[in-house]
Amino acid sequence: MHHAVRTLLEEMPREELTVPQVAARAGVTPSTIYRRWGDLPALLADVALQRFHPDNGPADMGSLRSDLQTWAQGYQEEMSSAPGRAMTRDVLASNDARSPACQCAAITRSQIQMILDRAVERGETPPDINIVMDNVVAPLIYRLLFDDAPIDPAFARSRMAMLLDPGR
Amino acid sequence: MHHAVRTLLEEMPREELTVPQVAARAGVTPSTIYRRWGDLPALLADVALQRFHPDNGPADMGSLRSDLQTWAQGYQEEMSSAPGRAMTRDVLASNDARSPACQCAAITRSQIQMILDRAVERGETPPDINIVMDNVVAPLIYRLLFDDAPIDPAFARSRMAMLLDPGR
Repeated sequence: MHHAVRTLLEEMPREELTVPQVAARAGVTPSTIYRRWGDLPALLADVALQRFHPDNGPADMGSLRSDLQTWAQGYQEEMSSAPGRAMTRDVLASNDARSPACQCAAITRSQIQMILDRAVERGETPPDINIVMDNVVAPLIYRLLFDDAPIDPAFARSRMAMLLDPGR
Repeated sequence: MHHAVRTLLEEMPREELTVPQVAARAGVTPSTIYRRWGDLPALLADVALQRFHPDNGPADMGSLRSDLQTWAQGYQEEMSSAPGRAMTRDVLASNDARSPACQCAAITRSQIQMILDRAVERGETPPDINIVMDNVVAPLIYRLLFDDAPIDPAFARSRMAMLLDPGR
């Protein structure tokens, strides 16, 4: 079903996508989709989450600082891209009880946690994960959702730098 | 039209609301609504924005610190409430070209700016408005949208305190 959605999205605007089209492409009846996902927004959110679920952990750059900076830069690029913005819209539009929006935040959180755990193993003292979410992830996503001004490409990196060097 | 939407929302779940129902209640044809708003999400976003557009500026508590703290507390209560959450959902769901999500953020921004301008008149040195948006507004809204954990009722106040006393 995911493959059917992905190929259809390459052929048409998502506003025009319908459950019967996805069903036809996947060779099932629409009721199969309604039974399993409930509605189209829930299916789209599921596909979007899958697409953004990273296959492997964040790159190990040798230090907490460069791991976090590299991650922040990649995260901003990913979330600012057209597929990233579409994913955010899809997970927020779904009323699925499994809460795709929360799953989406949990994926982000687990990526950051891997970096923080690695820092502890190295003997570094990482910041609290909630501070990273509140000070770096949240402002980026808020700007993407609620602000039509262009975002500085180094925004997430510089928020991360403020967090790592609070004195500056 | 706004009155028709508001009274219907008191009578039924918003998921069941349709354009023909709103039109019937308002005594117009559905095409009037489609012509002016485009679709139901755009109309709902317009009603939600109107409802949350504050009639007057934030309370003057005598100092920058208490103005910001009082505003942060009230903002958190408003946005965490059922109507506040519904408004956020409605403004994000709308694809209206007038971008209700950005209008919503602009209202928040103008409220904070009033507090900062008042502080300058008093001879106080206020923080930059973008810092207030990034450090207080964004983390609150991110948690409301992406996190199903309950939020500490003093969350926005304590984020504001961290911003006002960075050394602590």
